[in-house]
This record gives sequence, structure tokens and C-alpha cells, in this order.
Amino acid sequence: MLTVDTTQVKKSIALPYEEAMIPRLKIAHEWLQSGTGAGNDFVGWVNLPRDYDREELSRIHAAAARIRSDSKALVVIGIGGSYLGARGVIECLHSANYNLRRKDTPNIYFIGNSLSSEALHETMELIGDDDFSVNVISKSGTTTEPAVAFRFFRELLEKKYGREGAARRIYATTDKARGALKSMADAEGYETFCVPDDVGGRYSVLTAVGLLPIAVSGVDIDALLAGAGEMMEKCRKADLENPTWQYAAARTQLYKNGKKIELLAAYEPRFRFMAEWWKQLYGESEGKEGKGLFPASADFTADLHSLGQYIQQGERHLFETVVRFAPSEHQCLVPKSDTDGDGLNFLAGRSLDFLNEQAMDATLLAHVEGGVPNIVIRLAENGARAIGATVYFFEYACGLCGYMLSVNPFDQPGVEAYKKNMFALLGKPGYEDMRAELLAKLGR
Amino acid sequence: MLTVDTTQVKKSIALPYEEAMIPRLKIAHEWLQSGTGAGNDFVGWVNLPRDYDREELSRIHAAAARIRSDSKALVVIGIGGSYLGARGVIECLHSANYNLRRKDTPNIYFIGNSLSSEALHETMELIGDDDFSVNVISKSGTTTEPAVAFRFFRELLEKKYGREGAARRIYATTDKARGALKSMADAEGYETFCVPDDVGGRYSVLTAVGLLPIAVSGVDIDALLAGAGEMMEKCRKADLENPTWQYAAARTQLYKNGKKIELLAAYEPRFRFMAEWWKQLYGESEGKEGKGLFPASADFTADLHSLGQYIQQGERHLFETVVRFAPSEHQCLVPKSDTDGDGLNFLAGRSLDFLNEQAMDATLLAHVEGGVPNIVIRLAENGARAIGATVYFFEYACGLCGYMLSVNPFDQPGVEAYKKNMFALLGKPGYEDMRAELLAKLGR
Repeated sequence: MLTVDTTQVKKSIALPYEEAMIPRLKIAHEWLQSGTGAGNDFVGWVNLPRDYDREELSRIHAAAARIRSDSKALVVIGIGGSYLGARGVIECLHSANYNLRRKDTPNIYFIGNSLSSEALHETMELIGDDDFSVNVISKSGTTTEPAVAFRFFRELLEKKYGREGAARRIYATTDKARGALKSMADAEGYETFCVPDDVGGRYSVLTAVGLLPIAVSGVDIDALLAGAGEMMEKCRKADLENPTWQYAAARTQLYKNGKKIELLAAYEPRFRFMAEWWKQLYGESEGKEGKGLFPASADFTADLHSLGQYIQQGERHLFETVVRFAPSEHQCLVPKSDTDGDGLNFLAGRSLDFLNEQAMDATLLAHVEGGVPNIVIRLAENGARAIGATVYFFEYACGLCGYMLSVNPFDQPGVEAYKKNMFALLGKPGYEDMRAELLAKLGR
Repeated sequence: MLTVDTTQVKKSIALPYEEAMIPRLKIAHEWLQSGTGAGNDFVGWVNLPRDYDREELSRIHAAAARIRSDSKALVVIGIGGSYLGARGVIECLHSANYNLRRKDTPNIYFIGNSLSSEALHETMELIGDDDFSVNVISKSGTTTEPAVAFRFFRELLEKKYGREGAARRIYATTDKARGALKSMADAEGYETFCVPDDVGGRYSVLTAVGLLPIAVSGVDIDALLAGAGEMMEKCRKADLENPTWQYAAARTQLYKNGKKIELLAAYEPRFRFMAEWWKQLYGESEGKEGKGLFPASADFTADLHSLGQYIQQGERHLFETVVRFAPSEHQCLVPKSDTDGDGLNFLAGRSLDFLNEQAMDATLLAHVEGGVPNIVIRLAENGARAIGATVYFFEYACGLCGYMLSVNPFDQPGVEAYKKNMFALLGKPGYEDMRAELLAKLGR
């Protein structure tokens, strides 16, 4: 379903790094499987495809069906892990133009992931008079961006449908028992879904956090979970046949060898937001204690005409991980031209997929020759099952890599700094001293 | 109109780096102004806002008006510099949801920037039975991605409107005299616009390359050029009042001090593709001879919950350049809640813009404290004029930086490697030996 090809990495590393790394892989693997490593309160995702609450899943299906039947738009309010996974999977399995397409599923708007007035105002304008529902996703309910956005859309819903009518159109994905959003949901009577205690935001796409919006878009979430489950089984293997071991060994070795940037690339524009999801997963899991590969992404072949020059000849501090999709179901055959003005008749009758495959091989060789090792991740098929497997693959490899880097892959202590500063500058009661200090630093 | 604030860079660098850099800034500036540096065949963009062909500009206005009147969709075929600038400006001045909005201008689809069957097929499906026109943008007309896409859309147009009817709907932006696309345009009778000989792709957004699609979307391209012209005048100054000197000095010094990644961030989601344009501009201009800052981008506050952890505590090899927009015309005031379940009533009545400003200051202080210097670029207004100025600002600073790095900022020798490999693998006549060699490397 998914294979890892590290041939072009092995060529650039003289030593048999995989074998050398087996002892550390074993430990990291054992920590994940048994939940005995750092951050072990947050390894619920490891067995999630097997253990996921079936009652919750059937409520997700029912809620998605209800939203599809009574709404022309779904507003998904969330930030970070409560945003990127769902958007990534929806765009990858439909396209970035999902909302533009003719379809019998609702438009989906992601909001509460910035503080932009433009974005908020535009979303309200795009919804217009359409019937809509809201899925607000927040473990605590007090993260500023989604909480503020929820105030706007709750007000809009209540004006349109009354308080009770609004309550029937609000779906809260939050803590199972505690927190501001859970209390509000219980008081108002919103249907709630659970952000499990043992699954951190960036590992939560295969819970209600991601599954409800994904299901609303018409993606087969059972297939998504099944694919993840198959990959989960593959990942049980404690040896180098485990594809996550191959990926983790290669990127860990490349980092040890001085590479500082991992550039995730695909040759499908619809992968763009899966790469954003991946950036959070890896950046937040590894980027601590002054360590970690910087996660960047590219959209090929477009960016071969952009970052391509840098990749080929710039600083030699990066490597690429390339995701290759299976052939498309659409056979687009290059038309023959009677004049052959562009000299491309030698391609006439060839499929665009064939061209894309040659571009991948051509680029692989060019970049490796230029000093940029390439890891290739190949999907054997393209649908929900394969993307579910891909999600789990990256999650499991990320856990392995964090442990091999000797960090806790499941915390994010650095995210608090800007939040605290923001509360102080916004004048939150209790932050008065800090506020004075910050204003002084800003020279005010 | 645009100011650069390097206060938080100066705090992290003990020496008065700006003064120390004046001699090199002067030389680089002189090379750009007089066209006497490396790559001086390609500095036509320096005086473009003043010298731009007025007859061509009025033809652009006329063509845009015609497309708006006879087409519901415009297909823009181009890659790299023939793609990113137009998309960046259109999204920045409308939004990424431009096509989704109710409007009296055509939808705009960018294609020919990948080899994805999915993307091609989808664009055809989205156009459906709508009347459409094509703007094909290619200096040579033989770059594979756009040339292949043009074959598909030309065939579609000819089926729909006949060969002559199609010819009236095809606008070719290409070399003024030579090349495959120019010859085809002359033979078929397409209206043509010019890619000037002395303006490279990544500096071409303020020529017909960018201006035609931008005008079709309803952006005031005269204001765009006027803003660029005002910035051009500011950039004539050979001293540190020139904002590009400030930016160039700061990022050059940070690179000398060991920073390897420049992260361009904005707090407006609609800036996303301007950042993509910027990545090509800087990556392709500087990334050569084993040198250059790696250009990356982030979308805040969203990515504070994603890359934020890495920025705060990961490897200390990056700095940020933050573009701050002027306040929005939409005053979104945080609603008061009767229950205050989320505890945010202390923000009730505050505008979202106010919150966003506090987030910017909060993040600035947090990241600087974490060891990530920040350059702030502040726009005094938000419309076409300001974006025109921003485009010119980044272009001019890029020229300066390239020269200070001792590279030719106007060539891109590394982009050829994958193209040649691709021709060989695709079986282009004349590449037989190379093909055999590459297949061997691929183990086939």
C-alpha cells in the first residue's frame, strides 16, 4: 500500500546506517508499542485505528449525514491540530477546489485559525443566506483564535435559527468531561464528540477532530480508518521491513550527517495541505531543545521553477522526501498538433501521468547529483484507504524519530510563549505585571 | 507606504552592521542603477514602473475588458515566474477564494504549472460549458508543462469555437520576436503581449506576464504600477533611508552570522501565494554556488500552532521577516457573551484587528526571546498601490542581496538539470545517450 525507497540515500552514505540504527529503533519502537517512553500519556493514537470508539464513530456518521441533509455549508472552527488534518485530507482526496466543485455535499470553511478580519468577514459573506452548521473543535475551549471565531458564528446561528435552533446546528469536538467548551455544550445542548485525553492535537486527525469534517465532505472515513489500521499492523513489526523504520532511519541519519531541512514534496497540487499537516506533526514533535529538522514543503513540478534552483545549487543543508501517488484515474493523453510548433509531438498520445513519472525520475537524479539525498514514499493506490495508511505511517515514524532524537515527541512547551504574551498584551486580568514588562520591551 | 523595522535585529547584533555594510550596499546599488553588474542583461525591471510601454499597457486594459465581457473563465497557463506573481497578487488583493466569490469578473484558473492529470482534468470540469479564454505565458513556448497544457486547452477551444474563434480567445504573452509560441501566435493570429528581453521570469509580474491576469480579476493595475513607481523612486536613494538597504543589510548580516533560513510570515491568509512568489524570487536569485538563505514561509497565527514550537525552541538557524498589513476595512467586533463560558468577555467590543496586532507583538517578543531575530515590514495601506510597492521593494532588495552575496542574481543555471533529464527520459530525439545513462542510474 505504501513503500519507502531509500536507494538514493544509501548511495550518499558510505556506512550501513540502517543496521547501525537498529538498537535505537528497537527502543523507540518498544516505547511506542508499550507506552513506556517520555510523553506516554499521549500515545493513544498508536492503537487508535483498532480501538477507536465504535459508538462515537457511528455518531460521527449520523452527524455527517444530518449536516449534509440540512446544511449547504459547514464552518469548521479550529487551529493547529484541530484544523490541518481535516483540511489536508479533504483537499488531498477531493482537491483545493472542493468548495468550487459541483457536488451534493456542503461547502466546508475552515476558520478560527487566524485573527484576520478579512478571512472572517469573507467566510460570513460566502455563507450568505445558506443554511449552515458549525463544528467547533477545541480541547479546552479557551484558545483565543477558535474561541473568538466561535463567538461570531454562534451569534450568527442564533440570529438565524434562534438559540435552540442554533444549538441543534452546533457540533462541539472537545474534552469528554472538562473545560469551557464542554461546559458550554452541556448547558446549551450541543452534540459533542471527544478529543481523547491520550491523543495530542497533531495526532488527532483520525479521531472526531478530523473525521467529522472529513465525513461531511463525502470521504469514506471507514476506508480511511481501515487503511490506517493496515498500516498500524505493518508498524508492529520490529525490524527493517517496517516502512516507518526505513523512513525514520534515513531521516535521522541525514540529520546526523548535517542536513538541517527536510523538504516534503509531491507532484500533485492537492497534496499541499497534507504537507502543512506534516509540518506541524514533525516540527512540533522534534523542534525542541535546540534540535530538529526544519520541515519545509514544495509543490512539484511548479516549484522546480521556483525553489528548484536553490535545491540544485544552494546551501547543501537539505534533503527531500518525495511522496509519489499512484496513476490517476483520468487518462489525459497529450494531443497531437498538426503544426508541432512547440516541438512536442514526440509526446503525442502519451498520458500526463507518464510525463509526471518521468519528471519525478528526472528530478530525483538531478537533485541527488546536486547533493540532495532523496527518500521516496510510493503509494500503491490513491483513495481514502491509502491516505489513511499515509497518515498513520507519518505519525508512527514521527514518534520513532522523536525518541531517537532524545526529545519528548508529544509535548509542545514552546507554544505557550506567544500565548502568554498575547494574553498580557490583550489586557487579560491577572497579567498586569507581564503586560507592563512587555510594553517596555516594545518601547511603549 | 512601506517601512522596515529592524529594531529586533539590532538588539541581537552587537556591532553596527548597517554602517559596516554601506560600502557593499553602495556597490550593489550602483550596479542595479547603472546596469553594470553581473547579469546586467536582466535589469530591465529596475526602471520598469517608469518605462513600461504605455501602448502595451493600454492593450492589456483592452484585452482584460474583452475577456471580462466574453468569458466566464480565464485559463492562465504558465509556470514559475509566469504563474506565481499573478496568483500571488490576485489572492492577496482578493483572496484565495477569489473564484468562489460572487463577482462580475471571470473565474481564473492557473494551470500548466504541474503535470498532474487530476489538476488538468479538474480545471476542464470546473470550466464545464462556460465561455472561456486562455492566456498562455511562456518566453520560449517550449517549456514542457505549459506547452503541454496549452495543447489541451487549445484543442478544447477549437472544438468549441472553431479554429478562428479559438484564435480570438487566446492571448499569448511571449517573446516579442522569436520562439515557438511567438511563431504559433503569428501564424494563428493570437493577440500577443511581450515578455521583455531584459526582465527575467521571477521579476516579470509587473509586465504583461502578471498584469493581464491581474487586470482580468478587476485589480487596478494602474495603481499597482503607480505604487511600484513610488517605491522605485524611494529606492533611488543611495543611503540607509532606502528601505531596501535596511532589509538587505539585515538579512545579509543574519546570514553571515549563521542563520540559514528566512521564514517569511504574515498574519493574513491571503498572503500565502505572495510568499510563494517571494520564495522563487529569493531562492532562485541567491541559491547558487552552495550559498543562500533557504526561503520558507508561514501563515500566522495558524502556524504558531504548527511551526510555532520549532520556531520557539528548535535549531537556532532561522530568522523571520514579518509582513504587517494595515488595518482591515472590516471592523469585526468581538461579541459579548451572556455566559462568558470561554472567559473572553474582557475582549468583547474589541476589533479582530486589535487582537491580530497584539498577536503580532506578542509573537515578535516571544520569538526574539527564543533566539529568532525578526525583521518587520509594515504596510501603511492595503490596496493595489501598496502591493505594487511591496513587489518592487522585494525585487530591488533581492538584487542588492544577490550582489552582496557575490552571485549573479539574475541567472538560474541549476534549473536546467531536471529539464534535460526529463527530455532524455521522455525520449526526446537527440537525447538517446543521456537516456541510456539515466536509466542505468535508475537501475532499469
